[in-house]
Amino acid sequence: MFTGDDKILAAELVETIRFFEQKNWTPATSTNYSARSSQNPGQFLISRSGVDKSKFKLDDLILINSEGDIRSDFRLPGVKSSAETGIHTEIYKRFPLVNSVLHSHSVLSTTLSFCQLKNKKVIFEGLEILKGFEGNETHELQQVMPIVPNSQYIPDIMRDLSPFFETGEPIHGFLIAGHGLYTWGKDVATAKRHIETFEFLFECYHTMRRQLWEC
Amino acid sequence: MFTGDDKILAAELVETIRFFEQKNWTPATSTNYSARSSQNPGQFLISRSGVDKSKFKLDDLILINSEGDIRSDFRLPGVKSSAETGIHTEIYKRFPLVNSVLHSHSVLSTTLSFCQLKNKKVIFEGLEILKGFEGNETHELQQVMPIVPNSQYIPDIMRDLSPFFETGEPIHGFLIAGHGLYTWGKDVATAKRHIETFEFLFECYHTMRRQLWEC
Amino acid sequence: MFTGDDKILAAELVETIRFFEQKNWTPATSTNYSARSSQNPGQFLISRSGVDKSKFKLDDLILINSEGDIRSDFRLPGVKSSAETGIHTEIYKRFPLVNSVLHSHSVLSTTLSFCQLKNKKVIFEGLEILKGFEGNETHELQQVMPIVPNSQYIPDIMRDLSPFFETGEPIHGFLIAGHGLYTWGKDVATAKRHIETFEFLFECYHTMRRQLWEC
Amino acid sequence: MFTGDDKILAAELVETIRFFEQKNWTPATSTNYSARSSQNPGQFLISRSGVDKSKFKLDDLILINSEGDIRSDFRLPGVKSSAETGIHTEIYKRFPLVNSVLHSHSVLSTTLSFCQLKNKKVIFEGLEILKGFEGNETHELQQVMPIVPNSQYIPDIMRDLSPFFETGEPIHGFLIAGHGLYTWGKDVATAKRHIETFEFLFECYHTMRRQLWEC
Repeated sequence: MFTGDDKILAAELVETIRFFEQKNWTPATSTNYSARSSQNPGQFLISRSGVDKSKFKLDDLILINSEGDIRSDFRLPGVKSSAETGIHTEIYKRFPLVNSVLHSHSVLSTTLSFCQLKNKKVIFEGLEILKGFEGNETHELQQVMPIVPNSQYIPDIMRDLSPFFETGEPIHGFLIAGHGLYTWGKDVATAKRHIETFEFLFECYHTMRRQLWEC
Repeated sequence: MFTGDDKILAAELVETIRFFEQKNWTPATSTNYSARSSQNPGQFLISRSGVDKSKFKLDDLILINSEGDIRSDFRLPGVKSSAETGIHTEIYKRFPLVNSVLHSHSVLSTTLSFCQLKNKKVIFEGLEILKGFEGNETHELQQVMPIVPNSQYIPDIMRDLSPFFETGEPIHGFLIAGHGLYTWGKDVATAKRHIETFEFLFECYHTMRRQLWEC
Repeated sequence: MFTGDDKILAAELVETIRFFEQKNWTPATSTNYSARSSQNPGQFLISRSGVDKSKFKLDDLILINSEGDIRSDFRLPGVKSSAETGIHTEIYKRFPLVNSVLHSHSVLSTTLSFCQLKNKKVIFEGLEILKGFEGNETHELQQVMPIVPNSQYIPDIMRDLSPFFETGEPIHGFLIAGHGLYTWGKDVATAKRHIETFEFLFECYHTMRRQLWEC
Repeated sequence: MFTGDDKILAAELVETIRFFEQKNWTPATSTNYSARSSQNPGQFLISRSGVDKSKFKLDDLILINSEGDIRSDFRLPGVKSSAETGIHTEIYKRFPLVNSVLHSHSVLSTTLSFCQLKNKKVIFEGLEILKGFEGNETHELQQVMPIVPNSQYIPDIMRDLSPFFETGEPIHGFLIAGHGLYTWGKDVATAKRHIETFEFLFECYHTMRRQLWEC
């Protein structure tokens, strides 16, 4: 159903989802993904709800507007947008330069966030991989990542994130406790690199079992 | 040998088995899988005994009746139904809406069940992945999973499970100590999602090493 | 160079090696594999030395006699039989019904054997996967696995194994300390199943960290 | 753009990079790789900066001279040599017989080096896999691996390595703290085998948690 540049974008998103599936970051039909339409910047390609990510294909992407409504030609029986659509649309509203929002639901993002919710954030520092985040030219910095409580009501999540966004500090993603990671970027490739960077940081910190993680 | 809808169903079952094999949940020809025939609801497709799951193919599925007898046209030299066939047929009898029963034999299902048999059950709570179980709309619940002793005599296993089934609480699967996980669902996709949900829970709880797991 | 049944056997051996490579059990050109020729039971197909197992192919198998000498038509520049050829030929001499000998060099076989050499053996018990060993009909048994010191001189290894073989207890494989696992079977499929069974046991025991493993 | 032997060499390098990617050693566009040109030994094929290694292809290799300058026909918009090009060129200068330099950025190389920087080196001993290093005929030896602090300024790194190289001891690779592993060899296959050998050693030592690793 997508044509032209949006068809290329859709294919890139599908390839990225299958890559994450191979890493075991998308269990049991969880996770959701989006990208801003190349042809209409007020519209967004987003993964529909309930699809086994090991079988995810082009037809499993739908088009929504900035309020999360499905465009009429994508309204088909059984097709729903992700339950977390509101997270995507809110991020696009807050960060106008963001063109892709990605989510992973790995064992480590789930458990780190569950164990460390009490601290409300994690600070990563000193590892070369920090250069994986857009704009970082050195490993000698501190990267703050918010952790907010899980809720089935999206406005709760966005409200808890708000203070972090308002500090003006560069925030590249956040954790929802017991639920996983959201990140974003200027394009799908950048957002994908941010997922990989965060997941690698989770694996390093888990391996080192430093102050964090014990619960 | 399968035709029509059963051929499609058989192909879906094979694809699911190969998916589990890739996850390392099917070591050394262990594990068994079934689905209710689309064409004859009193018959069941089931994996035959002793097949290397990395090579599992359509011809390795056979058709049995509700007593576990192999249908005559599938009786070939060397072809046996799984030693655990009785677990499958008993679950279909108890839950008439179930159309697929799947088993995984992962390192974590084996060791969690071996270590925690003394508690007779595990309770999972608080993680978003709990929504992977059919009917769950929130992570704010407790999911009970029975653990029963291993036995080479299937009626022992079913007898020990019986009290759990009779509570009326929603049970989506159980562990046999040192042996692995059985789960089920209204179709193969749902049962597959349940396997992924349980295995993800095992990985999270192992990573967190909370009260459970130490032995 | 292989023809007829030996060509089929060679293909099965290559497929098995590539399977092990995918599991990360064959690092850095280590490991070696053999099977008794179907056409000449006094000859053996064996992997040649120094090949990257991620690229292993039919031409990397050579034919040796029971003394480990390469058959003349397989003697090519740069082609050597494995440094551990003597382990294979000695096992075939001791167990006339064995038709395949396989070796894995996994992280867990390496470290378990290195840490537990002081006990000279490991005993596995109580797990369903024990039925993966030929002849076992129950999980309620104890399986002894010898551990012998590593040596670059094969007769040392065989001498240390000898007392275990002479007990008459069923031994399905052994560990060389800091070096890995050898196992065997009546055919390639059985020996492969034994590798999978042992490696699964190593993973379970590592996860449980019971008396064993700490060093 | 490569022709003849260099085209074959480039294909081998790409295959090696994709192999490492499958092992999860190349997160978030990190890592870099090179080989000495077969056709002009004063020139080197090297991976260009910023490429997703899961999509790395022949066109992502460029040709540089021994000072790290990109050859004119490879200078295209957006094409930069790796930020760590200087590490490669310095290794080729110091070791004239080296024809390939490879880098991995695994979780274990990152965390081992971060935790053990205080000791300035790691010594590996006693494991069979040590024979994976060129020239080793036995496991009964000690292999020294330097660890140097991370820096965004390459001459710092080379200065800290210098004392290790000057001992004359055989050094097959080094760790940059929190950043990963560099190794090399007489050809791509040897350097690849060295990466596998080191990564396997990291996994073994992590599993054994001996004196090292805790931080």
